[in-house]
Amino acid sequence: MGMTLTEKILAKKAGKKEVQPGEIVTVEPTWVMSHDNSAAILLKFKKTGVKKVWNPKKIVIILDHTVPAPTADYANNHKSIREFVKEQGIENFWDINTGICHQVMAEKGYDLPGAVIVGADSHTTTPGAFGAFAAGIGRSEVAAIWATGKIWLRVPESYEIIVNGKLPKGVFAKDLALHIVGDVTASGAVYKAVEFKGETIKDMTIASRMVLTNMSAEMGAKNGIIEADEKTEAYLKTRARAPYEIMHPDEDAEYERRYEYDASDLVPKIAFPHTVDNVYDIDKAEGIEVNQVFLGTCTNGRVEDLEIAARILKGKKVNKNVRMLVFPASWDVWREADEKGILRTLAEAGAVIMNPGCGPCLGAHAGVLADGEKCLSTANRNFKGRMGNPNAEIYLGSPATAAATALKGYIADPREVL
Amino acid sequence: MGMTLTEKILAKKAGKKEVQPGEIVTVEPTWVMSHDNSAAILLKFKKTGVKKVWNPKKIVIILDHTVPAPTADYANNHKSIREFVKEQGIENFWDINTGICHQVMAEKGYDLPGAVIVGADSHTTTPGAFGAFAAGIGRSEVAAIWATGKIWLRVPESYEIIVNGKLPKGVFAKDLALHIVGDVTASGAVYKAVEFKGETIKDMTIASRMVLTNMSAEMGAKNGIIEADEKTEAYLKTRARAPYEIMHPDEDAEYERRYEYDASDLVPKIAFPHTVDNVYDIDKAEGIEVNQVFLGTCTNGRVEDLEIAARILKGKKVNKNVRMLVFPASWDVWREADEKGILRTLAEAGAVIMNPGCGPCLGAHAGVLADGEKCLSTANRNFKGRMGNPNAEIYLGSPATAAATALKGYIADPREVL
Repeated sequence: MGMTLTEKILAKKAGKKEVQPGEIVTVEPTWVMSHDNSAAILLKFKKTGVKKVWNPKKIVIILDHTVPAPTADYANNHKSIREFVKEQGIENFWDINTGICHQVMAEKGYDLPGAVIVGADSHTTTPGAFGAFAAGIGRSEVAAIWATGKIWLRVPESYEIIVNGKLPKGVFAKDLALHIVGDVTASGAVYKAVEFKGETIKDMTIASRMVLTNMSAEMGAKNGIIEADEKTEAYLKTRARAPYEIMHPDEDAEYERRYEYDASDLVPKIAFPHTVDNVYDIDKAEGIEVNQVFLGTCTNGRVEDLEIAARILKGKKVNKNVRMLVFPASWDVWREADEKGILRTLAEAGAVIMNPGCGPCLGAHAGVLADGEKCLSTANRNFKGRMGNPNAEIYLGSPATAAATALKGYIADPREVL
Repeated sequence: MGMTLTEKILAKKAGKKEVQPGEIVTVEPTWVMSHDNSAAILLKFKKTGVKKVWNPKKIVIILDHTVPAPTADYANNHKSIREFVKEQGIENFWDINTGICHQVMAEKGYDLPGAVIVGADSHTTTPGAFGAFAAGIGRSEVAAIWATGKIWLRVPESYEIIVNGKLPKGVFAKDLALHIVGDVTASGAVYKAVEFKGETIKDMTIASRMVLTNMSAEMGAKNGIIEADEKTEAYLKTRARAPYEIMHPDEDAEYERRYEYDASDLVPKIAFPHTVDNVYDIDKAEGIEVNQVFLGTCTNGRVEDLEIAARILKGKKVNKNVRMLVFPASWDVWREADEKGILRTLAEAGAVIMNPGCGPCLGAHAGVLADGEKCLSTANRNFKGRMGNPNAEIYLGSPATAAATALKGYIADPREVL
């Protein structure tokens, strides 16, 4: 019987001819990633009694969550990580001047077709956009991998999500992702492999594909995955850090479930507070006044995201009742956006251009909301308290919706301003 | 008997022909400024029982200290200020997308020759660079002015600080300021008016003059002041918000003390931890390894400051053991520096370009130091704990020294890399 893309990768990595959903396999990950939480992980690692990590070349640490450190405690955590990195000879360390881990993993050539990537962050599903098996794991699991080089994984059942048709003007990968999460629900794909297919996905940029795999976590999926193609290869040409193998699902692969969507039917979508699957067409949200617009994150902080926002805001001003915060996903994004004049356009409109990093997404840094405030965010989560204040509301939408909303002062349909 | 510049301004504002040092005068300030601390001030104001501020056109509020808000408490403070501003009809409100108060006051045309400017921040001495009387006052005093429109001031005795000679290459206004503070000492000019004069001052840009008046606070001075001239007028041409009068000290004005300096003798200076007057020539500091370089603040976050740093770092990389944080002093500075390619040069060197604001200067936001860390900072204060951690050390220097230090990884003489 044929295997899905996820099964094929896990079989190969486990040194098996075939694997079945439900089977437990033990693999050595291609990369194990962690971020600021490495400070907690290294304490766990030290408790194992192991003195040296299994392979310092396979460990990737990226500081992105609270950068630069907002308190002495965070600063001390960063310091302990820097010391550990030196002590262990970990070369793949990226300090606070690099960017968000999931973006850096792509840009710096760690996200490779056929790779098995695990990381101590829920949205480590993101590298699936490159045809990798990629999943979020716990901190203890990362510490155990540092010590042993191994992790066991239960081979997930696979869902296929087939999208055909052309996304209408003003409708983007984020709208599609929200639509799918709303349809599948937040618990609808728990521990499943979600394989995205179809012409719409084929037509997407790498950046847009990353939106889908990133948000797979919001359906509970173990991993999200997209077959690598010539776009993937072009992206990797100057970046790949290691050899890679492009794999394909078998034609007779068995999927537990199939979802099909027609992209040409879609409209801009909004996830209402306080769950990501609380998704409605934008008309239900239009007119809701917001205090802050947050453009950025590992979901939507890439050049194409900033570019569409700049197109909408060029020569105009952010509404005076709104604070617009822009966090490019990485310094590579920052530099490219700066070179293209995108950052200046946004700054001239009155947006606050922040340093690349997670920013207020997790509520531990610049951009926390006040009581009773509402935010339109391009992030992947809108849970109560997510942005640092349980008495605030977060609405999720696309970067175009974010820009239209910043312009109007209330949630607005980007199709009207594009 | 003749009057000093400070005396002349206070006499005029008090409606008197003449004032004497030691005399108490009551004046209506041209502007009363406050920042994030307006949240505390408005509570004090409300306790007075007065319902409406005396004159909403004279109150300037600029959010700069913790922008964007790093916690819900700070966010709630900002929110209370925005509500108060609307309720009172305060037009001169500048939200988090503007910049550091002392820079914004200059750029937005509040700093005017002959004006009396008071503000709830120690470095409200800065507008003295425009020939204004400008002083820091307490929060209760600001609340009282909001209620009554009046403040009493004791006319300070004046010191004159005369500087002649050309600053050598690699030596800047900041080095001169540190030299003067080191000489006069931190308590050497308590409640004095410090009038800067001489060819060196005349030759300085407005930005450099602001370094001197800004740092007057570090000698304990009530105010620092520089006669307005054609450079001041040129700067104000498109900016002045109100009519102004350029005043001059009388030729027979009486100064309590005179300091004279020859600028051509100077070398780069460093203020060692933990006092601003702990100043030495840079050779004593050379080689001290630092973990962070902080370029910015109301003292040294202007275009000329970023420009000299970019000149030093162009095509080079910040030392890998150093985090270099750049906080432009305002969004006007950000945009000009971006247009000139300065920001990109710094970013390409590996610096982290932050959003304009006070940043880590006061230890309440991004850029706090870890235990045992050292920072070379272009700020005006290096007190123990100032940057959020009492177990860290702050060395003060010029932007050129900051860039040289970032390059080398240890405190370095900018004359060797310029």
